[in-house]
Amino acid sequence: MDQMETVSGSAAPETGEPPYVLREVRGAVAVLTLNRPDQRNALSLGMIAALTKEIRALGQKRDVKVIVLTGDGPAFSSGHDLKELTRHRGDEDNGRSFYVNVMTACSRLMLSIVRSPKPVIAAVNGIATAAGCQLVASCDLAVASEESRFATPGVNIGLFCSTPMVALSRNVPPKAAMEMLLTGEMVPAAQAQVMGLINRAVPADRLMDETMALADTIASKPRATVKIGKEAFYRQAELSLDEAYGYAATVMVDNMLHAEAQEGIGAFLEKRKPCWPDGE
Amino acid sequence: MDQMETVSGSAAPETGEPPYVLREVRGAVAVLTLNRPDQRNALSLGMIAALTKEIRALGQKRDVKVIVLTGDGPAFSSGHDLKELTRHRGDEDNGRSFYVNVMTACSRLMLSIVRSPKPVIAAVNGIATAAGCQLVASCDLAVASEESRFATPGVNIGLFCSTPMVALSRNVPPKAAMEMLLTGEMVPAAQAQVMGLINRAVPADRLMDETMALADTIASKPRATVKIGKEAFYRQAELSLDEAYGYAATVMVDNMLHAEAQEGIGAFLEKRKPCWPDGE
Amino acid sequence: MDQMETVSGSAAPETGEPPYVLREVRGAVAVLTLNRPDQRNALSLGMIAALTKEIRALGQKRDVKVIVLTGDGPAFSSGHDLKELTRHRGDEDNGRSFYVNVMTACSRLMLSIVRSPKPVIAAVNGIATAAGCQLVASCDLAVASEESRFATPGVNIGLFCSTPMVALSRNVPPKAAMEMLLTGEMVPAAQAQVMGLINRAVPADRLMDETMALADTIASKPRATVKIGKEAFYRQAELSLDEAYGYAATVMVDNMLHAEAQEGIGAFLEKRKPCWPDGE
Repeated sequence: MDQMETVSGSAAPETGEPPYVLREVRGAVAVLTLNRPDQRNALSLGMIAALTKEIRALGQKRDVKVIVLTGDGPAFSSGHDLKELTRHRGDEDNGRSFYVNVMTACSRLMLSIVRSPKPVIAAVNGIATAAGCQLVASCDLAVASEESRFATPGVNIGLFCSTPMVALSRNVPPKAAMEMLLTGEMVPAAQAQVMGLINRAVPADRLMDETMALADTIASKPRATVKIGKEAFYRQAELSLDEAYGYAATVMVDNMLHAEAQEGIGAFLEKRKPCWPDGE
Repeated sequence: MDQMETVSGSAAPETGEPPYVLREVRGAVAVLTLNRPDQRNALSLGMIAALTKEIRALGQKRDVKVIVLTGDGPAFSSGHDLKELTRHRGDEDNGRSFYVNVMTACSRLMLSIVRSPKPVIAAVNGIATAAGCQLVASCDLAVASEESRFATPGVNIGLFCSTPMVALSRNVPPKAAMEMLLTGEMVPAAQAQVMGLINRAVPADRLMDETMALADTIASKPRATVKIGKEAFYRQAELSLDEAYGYAATVMVDNMLHAEAQEGIGAFLEKRKPCWPDGE
Repeated sequence: MDQMETVSGSAAPETGEPPYVLREVRGAVAVLTLNRPDQRNALSLGMIAALTKEIRALGQKRDVKVIVLTGDGPAFSSGHDLKELTRHRGDEDNGRSFYVNVMTACSRLMLSIVRSPKPVIAAVNGIATAAGCQLVASCDLAVASEESRFATPGVNIGLFCSTPMVALSRNVPPKAAMEMLLTGEMVPAAQAQVMGLINRAVPADRLMDETMALADTIASKPRATVKIGKEAFYRQAELSLDEAYGYAATVMVDNMLHAEAQEGIGAFLEKRKPCWPDGE
């Protein structure tokens, strides 16, 4: 029933290296596992490319309704690959064009999660730091093992976590975000939950079960409705109250005319189980 | 001393039905009670019209300083009236113009609360779902019975709670809002308080007493000052920090020149009780 | 080793009054102490001018890396000096131009904290009300004694805390802010922490030690990195997600090219302690 596949990010197969990301499809849920445990799942260009490609492809895949992101090993992700990042400092432009490439690719990965028509849930299996913490913040939902810890420690190495803070500061209150950013210190999962960075912390041995239960719940909802809603969520968040209501009202009207609402409301009024139409 | 009146929303009296909303004035506090317990206080067009009319009228009523919104029966409000909503699906336009009417009227109701010069407090007596949850989120303050529960379950019937999320996502952190919207699951009052959706949860038999105590406290404040402050609160929230300070400084200057500040500061410095001027 | 100086705000020395603000430099941390305990450290024009001058000067001072703000006596600050504020009500313009001066100067003080290249930490030693509460909310971080209490009680004297709410509502959830603003009631430190107004509450006799430990931690970070990060934090907060990523990516690229990142990342990869360059 379950279906296990591995996928390779750019370059990896040619070099004989293991794939950056593993993909396993369980029912309507695709689980992507960051597969560089020895490098603490650093977001190298290869890893960023593989993840972005996977998330975009799954966004278009009809039989996948929810995406779960997790990591192999003790870390969820430690953020940028610093060795790779410094490799071009000897270039004519001191590495500027390379840094632009890396930062652009990384921001695009984060936006591909926000823009995906499918909800993306982080299953945080360990430490999530810098761009790894940003990855958690960028997901729609996050479940973490109780031992997980979160930090934006760039300040310790002279590289402030400026892109991670875009996602972080849209999840947690400003003074909490500032403390993480200015001290670089680790925040345990329980505190991350209070802050709003994750939805909840669970025992490590329950992490995938709890995450899959949440994913299955969402996967049981009608496809187009979820897509409509997720898109509207992020769009209305950037509008004034007036504009947001104007926009959301048109979303609701279109949603009402969709076959899913017709069926869902009909089933509800007739006290029967809905039979969701198959279309997008 | 207390004064009990009932009011009828549009249409209700002609049809011999009970009024949609009951109004009771207790001192300077008007309590509006949603009066369709059998329909779980669904926001039908009649209910929306009655509530909007009441809130607008009370906004202009000099002797009312605070508005309390509560519901009769086990529910605060279950949101849209689905039976009514589907009544026009056979129309030539498949119901589109009717849906536009409903969504526009409902958004207008929510905005009438935000725009009211009088603080509006929700006294949540039971479940508040979909547009009923939005009604709570749209109020300036909310007290709820400990048994109250909150949800945005539209996703379960193919109609994402897109307009409710406008208010919800301006009250609670994004991952908490997303979980409610994507799962449709019930959130107990205690959790709703942690999230910021309500100010506090109290035992059911204390709900009206606690709400009235809060309302009376606010009703004891000078009228124009509260009006000035509430309006400024929502307006500055949509400005940049710079603009917000520019705007708020002019509000403060005007407020300083108002008779209420003159009397209030004078009384404070002279260590006497203020005697608020009667004007608006 | 530690260096204690006192500084005087405008006018104070000429009149023979004690200085408005005391400045003590401990290592790389400057502690500013509001020095009008008998007036509960009210933000008179003199106090505002002295504080603004100090914060701006320290922002340019190379050997100071973090600023701590605290108060002498039972209050952190009680907000505007009401006696002074009403002194000009007999003017031809009923005081308007004076109110404009005060509100402008006060907003400028708050913005000087936000705009300072150095992190500013409030060490809240007692009650912080009205513009005093705004001062706490405007700091990047805040530690408070467990006995500290917070309020925006302007509504009680007919002068709504409209400028304080600009900072308050950017720190705490809207219904929590509204309750403070509409009731004027005191919020204990523990609750202020839950709301997000302060980072944490500590026993009174630990306040300065805990605050200094936090300040020293931040002072150990490289100078330019902290400056880059703080500035980017507030700027990206007002942008859309897309714009914020575009902006933050350019900040990261420039940061990568800075000597601090070069040294910090190099040291990290070579597993040695970084030796921060001295330049700005």
